[in-house]
Amino acid sequence: MPLVRIDAPAAPDDALLALGEAVHLALVEAFGIPEDDRFQVLHGATGGQVVYDAGYLGITRDEGVAFVQVFLRRGRTDEQKRLFYRSLAQRAVTAGFEARNLVVTLTENGLGDWSFGEGAAQYLDDPPPGAR
Amino acid sequence: MPLVRIDAPAAPDDALLALGEAVHLALVEAFGIPEDDRFQVLHGATGGQVVYDAGYLGITRDEGVAFVQVFLRRGRTDEQKRLFYRSLAQRAVTAGFEARNLVVTLTENGLGDWSFGEGAAQYLDDPPPGAR
Amino acid sequence: MPLVRIDAPAAPDDALLALGEAVHLALVEAFGIPEDDRFQVLHGATGGQVVYDAGYLGITRDEGVAFVQVFLRRGRTDEQKRLFYRSLAQRAVTAGFEARNLVVTLTENGLGDWSFGEGAAQYLDDPPPGAR
Repeated sequence: MPLVRIDAPAAPDDALLALGEAVHLALVEAFGIPEDDRFQVLHGATGGQVVYDAGYLGITRDEGVAFVQVFLRRGRTDEQKRLFYRSLAQRAVTAGFEARNLVVTLTENGLGDWSFGEGAAQYLDDPPPGAR
Repeated sequence: MPLVRIDAPAAPDDALLALGEAVHLALVEAFGIPEDDRFQVLHGATGGQVVYDAGYLGITRDEGVAFVQVFLRRGRTDEQKRLFYRSLAQRAVTAGFEARNLVVTLTENGLGDWSFGEGAAQYLDDPPPGAR
Repeated sequence: MPLVRIDAPAAPDDALLALGEAVHLALVEAFGIPEDDRFQVLHGATGGQVVYDAGYLGITRDEGVAFVQVFLRRGRTDEQKRLFYRSLAQRAVTAGFEARNLVVTLTENGLGDWSFGEGAAQYLDDPPPGAR
């Protein structure tokens, strides 16, 4: 379900894919999404121009910055979100990114706001476990 | 009002435009938006890299996948959303896409969250019929 | 905090950056965000294809159209949003855009939905003044 958008202008294609993998694994770990629930749009050097503040909230960012935007259904707690950010940071470092360069934002919606093909509203027909 | 983002890396420009038209007509049919309320950003082959699971929820997807993201104001029912997905799937097939390849997500906001030019908040000044 | 996405296919790079600056200054003025809270993804001529209605709500738009999408935390009033649209329109004109060509939309989320690096949820640890 999550739809992930990544903008990381300095990342070569393989690093971009590795960051996408890191985001996915962190979503599985922190939010318990199925391992095959993966949908991402990745923009690297040929994407948009990225503007960032190099010091907001006392964190030093540079041209290696990566914006990660996740659209997902409502229902995760703040503690799960904290875990997601921590898990993503650790995994992104393994993928060659720096934890200081990750800017992450979540946007939530409802069960009726997803269709995974064939014109159906799968989460209305058959809600995921624990969904509310 | 809806702002539509489409990412369909395998679609030539004319197919991309046809999918945009399909989305628009489905929005008109299912949500009753005005026919001239159309704002879309379409990314094809030169857009981002798209990652998708080829079998999530038992639906087979391939490189013809198209992500459709719709930002719209709150107020549509689940039944209207079901109709939107069905209508879009039918129209997208006519446009040369396969219904199994459509991944659609909605994100809602409020009447104060839109400006259509001239620095005004048109939906606050003059709410659309039925808006809440 | 706001994450800003701009799509303005007719804008050269310097105009695009100037529009980004106009959006940022309007966010500072209307919503009171910190001056160093700036994160933007800007797409110009090499971005997606933009489809727009040339007359919706009686406003004439042309190929100079610019879509501005702002993701921000909840808590701003309708009056603040009105001020944002007005301020942005005035500043965008100075940047070489026409007020009639601006299509703006906001999408809100919560304090737990942001991480600005290092794997932390900074707005949960230390909420911004006035946040709710």
